[in-house]
Amino acid sequence: MHVLIVYTHPEPNSFNGAMKTAAAKHLRTLGHTVEISDLYAEGFDPAEKAAHYIDRVNPALFTPLAEQRHAGRNGTLPDDVQREIDRIERADLVLFQFPLWWHAQPAILKGWFDRVFVSGKLYTSSMRYDRGIFRGKRAVLSVTTGAPEAAFGPGGRGGDIELLLWPIQYSLHYVGFSVLEPFLSFSVAGHGYSYEDDREKIERLEGYQDAWIARLSGIQDETPLAFPGWADWDDAGRLKPERTPETALRFRKHKPAAIDALNC
Amino acid sequence: MHVLIVYTHPEPNSFNGAMKTAAAKHLRTLGHTVEISDLYAEGFDPAEKAAHYIDRVNPALFTPLAEQRHAGRNGTLPDDVQREIDRIERADLVLFQFPLWWHAQPAILKGWFDRVFVSGKLYTSSMRYDRGIFRGKRAVLSVTTGAPEAAFGPGGRGGDIELLLWPIQYSLHYVGFSVLEPFLSFSVAGHGYSYEDDREKIERLEGYQDAWIARLSGIQDETPLAFPGWADWDDAGRLKPERTPETALRFRKHKPAAIDALNC
Repeated sequence: MHVLIVYTHPEPNSFNGAMKTAAAKHLRTLGHTVEISDLYAEGFDPAEKAAHYIDRVNPALFTPLAEQRHAGRNGTLPDDVQREIDRIERADLVLFQFPLWWHAQPAILKGWFDRVFVSGKLYTSSMRYDRGIFRGKRAVLSVTTGAPEAAFGPGGRGGDIELLLWPIQYSLHYVGFSVLEPFLSFSVAGHGYSYEDDREKIERLEGYQDAWIARLSGIQDETPLAFPGWADWDDAGRLKPERTPETALRFRKHKPAAIDALNC
Repeated sequence: MHVLIVYTHPEPNSFNGAMKTAAAKHLRTLGHTVEISDLYAEGFDPAEKAAHYIDRVNPALFTPLAEQRHAGRNGTLPDDVQREIDRIERADLVLFQFPLWWHAQPAILKGWFDRVFVSGKLYTSSMRYDRGIFRGKRAVLSVTTGAPEAAFGPGGRGGDIELLLWPIQYSLHYVGFSVLEPFLSFSVAGHGYSYEDDREKIERLEGYQDAWIARLSGIQDETPLAFPGWADWDDAGRLKPERTPETALRFRKHKPAAIDALNC
């Protein structure tokens, strides 16, 4: 398969950087091809704004969705947005490697969603969710946290990790991806996401890398998370009364054995 | 009181812009003072990166939290970050006006959290949550959505609005704010967040403005949302078994009468 890694960290020698490099290397060893969107290194502009649109449908009033639709139709999308769309279209699996900052993805990655998922081109009111353009493709989050795993349960100090990742994973579901269980590396911060740490921490971080690599070997056979889809909603978008669909909130009940084995 | 409006929209003549202007005008009429952070107009850089730090604690390895702590201690924070901190410190109430993009705040506002909430200065491991630096100050989200209200219930097509806003509101709780119920304006998009629409839509949008203004008159007397706090957690950050704290997930049960009255 062909894998796109959307990688987000400002420091190449970070744990996130090491996870990205290890994943790319291992996937290539398995015979897959890998492409990397390095948002910081490529200077991706996260702010959706008028300056990105050279041929405006309405030069007097900037309405992002209208300009996205117009540019998508006319082939005048910003170069960096078109490049990211091309990368996604080539990929069978899109892997997101990022640190959790303020209970969500870093701003530069949030802007990737805001700008790259172009209205009219990557979705319409009828081409969404299980009818989304990227159905058949897979997506998976590999996320690092500063706080320890114990703090991320329901009501826990770090916030329920299931709640925190839900908006990101639902955005991937929106454009049709089959979203796999996220891979979580806890307690990565300290004085930065780096290897400048004691032996115990280094061993723990290397354990996460090994578990991630092990999981990637079988990632094509994993069952995706279940999200609500068109069959679950009435015309107004309400959940039908008879439906109680699985949601991605359940992912921690299906933690892969490789993570449990780390004992951390 | 003194109010800071953190306003996020790339188009001044948007509905978000109109909501910001109406709120500022009304608050001043009530005798309050108002300051506005206009993230787009001020060109706020959302990406946390090495270039923002002129005096590095570690020039060889960029670890965001370590550089934030160092710059906060040494008075070398980036000018725009220091300006935002000063603005928050002057405020009794911080009001966030923004559109929901991809199930979260726009990237430029996400970057405001990433960069302005400086480690070591605005929080430490012990100065967080109900022991946070901004306790006594209030915060409230005023959010516009593209999809209609019906789609934002549990399992609904737009995603459960309670889940979507949770990471943002919890981040405000993290630095000690008392977070008030959000104000939600639904079905604002269409062909952009603008007034270039039919009479029925304009009237509906004006109804939201009126309801928001009405709510602001009494916002000082509102009861904040309840989040878990230090008394709810064990030393590892787990929720104590005997605790079932209220969480901000409940906010829709307390929707202000003004919104119900809109009938939309």
